[in-house]
Amino acid sequence: MPHALIVHAHPEANSFCTAQMHEAAHALQAQGYTVEVSDLYAMHWEAELNRHDFTQDIEGHFKPPLAQQQAAEAHTFAPDIAAELEKLERADLLVFSFPMWWFSVPALLKGWVDRVFVRGVAYGGSVGTFVEGGLRGKRGLLLFTTGSLEEHFGPGARDGELDVLLFHIQHGMLWFCGVQVLAPVVSFAPVRGTPEDRQRQLGVVRDAFTTLDSRPIIFG
Amino acid sequence: MPHALIVHAHPEANSFCTAQMHEAAHALQAQGYTVEVSDLYAMHWEAELNRHDFTQDIEGHFKPPLAQQQAAEAHTFAPDIAAELEKLERADLLVFSFPMWWFSVPALLKGWVDRVFVRGVAYGGSVGTFVEGGLRGKRGLLLFTTGSLEEHFGPGARDGELDVLLFHIQHGMLWFCGVQVLAPVVSFAPVRGTPEDRQRQLGVVRDAFTTLDSRPIIFG
Repeated sequence: MPHALIVHAHPEANSFCTAQMHEAAHALQAQGYTVEVSDLYAMHWEAELNRHDFTQDIEGHFKPPLAQQQAAEAHTFAPDIAAELEKLERADLLVFSFPMWWFSVPALLKGWVDRVFVRGVAYGGSVGTFVEGGLRGKRGLLLFTTGSLEEHFGPGARDGELDVLLFHIQHGMLWFCGVQVLAPVVSFAPVRGTPEDRQRQLGVVRDAFTTLDSRPIIFG
Repeated sequence: MPHALIVHAHPEANSFCTAQMHEAAHALQAQGYTVEVSDLYAMHWEAELNRHDFTQDIEGHFKPPLAQQQAAEAHTFAPDIAAELEKLERADLLVFSFPMWWFSVPALLKGWVDRVFVRGVAYGGSVGTFVEGGLRGKRGLLLFTTGSLEEHFGPGARDGELDVLLFHIQHGMLWFCGVQVLAPVVSFAPVRGTPEDRQRQLGVVRDAFTTLDSRPIIFG
């Protein structure tokens, strides 16, 4: 049975962003997926990568990639990271669910990537990158809301091209580790829509997560 | 006398990344700048945007941009945010100093932008965006290290084009708020260089911050 991990970062349980995360989870379950959610705000996820990420002593100068590499070999990640690595390992599908803040993921989700996509497991060291990345064999995609209207994105538009803005996430995080990246599911400016618009958009989210096998592949 | 704010995010005081921050600060002081540093790791900066960002009560559903807008009008930002807003206001030059993690800023610096570039002050509401942004009149630039070699960046190269990777920061954060963006100062893979290479690179950083007036403008 396929398994999905949704990493979700919104401070408000009643937000539209959280509603579409639940919609995606239900659609996946209806397709036979088991679904696990890391709700980073609810978990009080720590965003700060530091020496406490490791149970081994860091001697002298702290170099994060080196410390991660050592922890990957010695299994000495702090419990919160070890738990996320186990979730990641059993996932066939990885979904980042978030409100786009400053044309990227919220700090909490960035801190999840900083601390969980560790060298020696997700990439690097004895593990490769991209097609040989540590997360190869998994599929992934972004599910997010924007504050800007759809017309603000595009060649020559105010905010720039969405593909360019998302490149650091889709290519730089997911595909870098070998995750095959499917086209993102985007809800533009739900805050400006009517309740009916938002209800319709939840249907779009449901349809997208019901038809992942025919969704375009962006990278991988 | 011109004033600079350097927002720095590296966990290690002895890192090359922190050394180049100090080099930049000294070069600016030698040019007549007064310099203030927000050293986010040393300050134990909180990366998580939430209801505690505000001293006003958030009634019912929490919508971050709306809450920021209200706080901008009522001056009800939490003390840590209010202090950063004062630093930002007095700065003529804004420098983000960081190790590039996952082709973006570390979570702590992302959390500084999420929480300090508030609606109603930095952009939006009665304030505009881009050329009319709330931070217009300021200059800014990125000062960072990479883990990847320089040859891994570029059209068709492994990690992609640096301009594309940085677009969400340079255009999406700085220029979005009206900050005129100067060409970034990049140290590629200092960890792989010799001590002499790193010493030479600190000279490049010093020269860059000594000649900002002739540095190419990327946006603005």
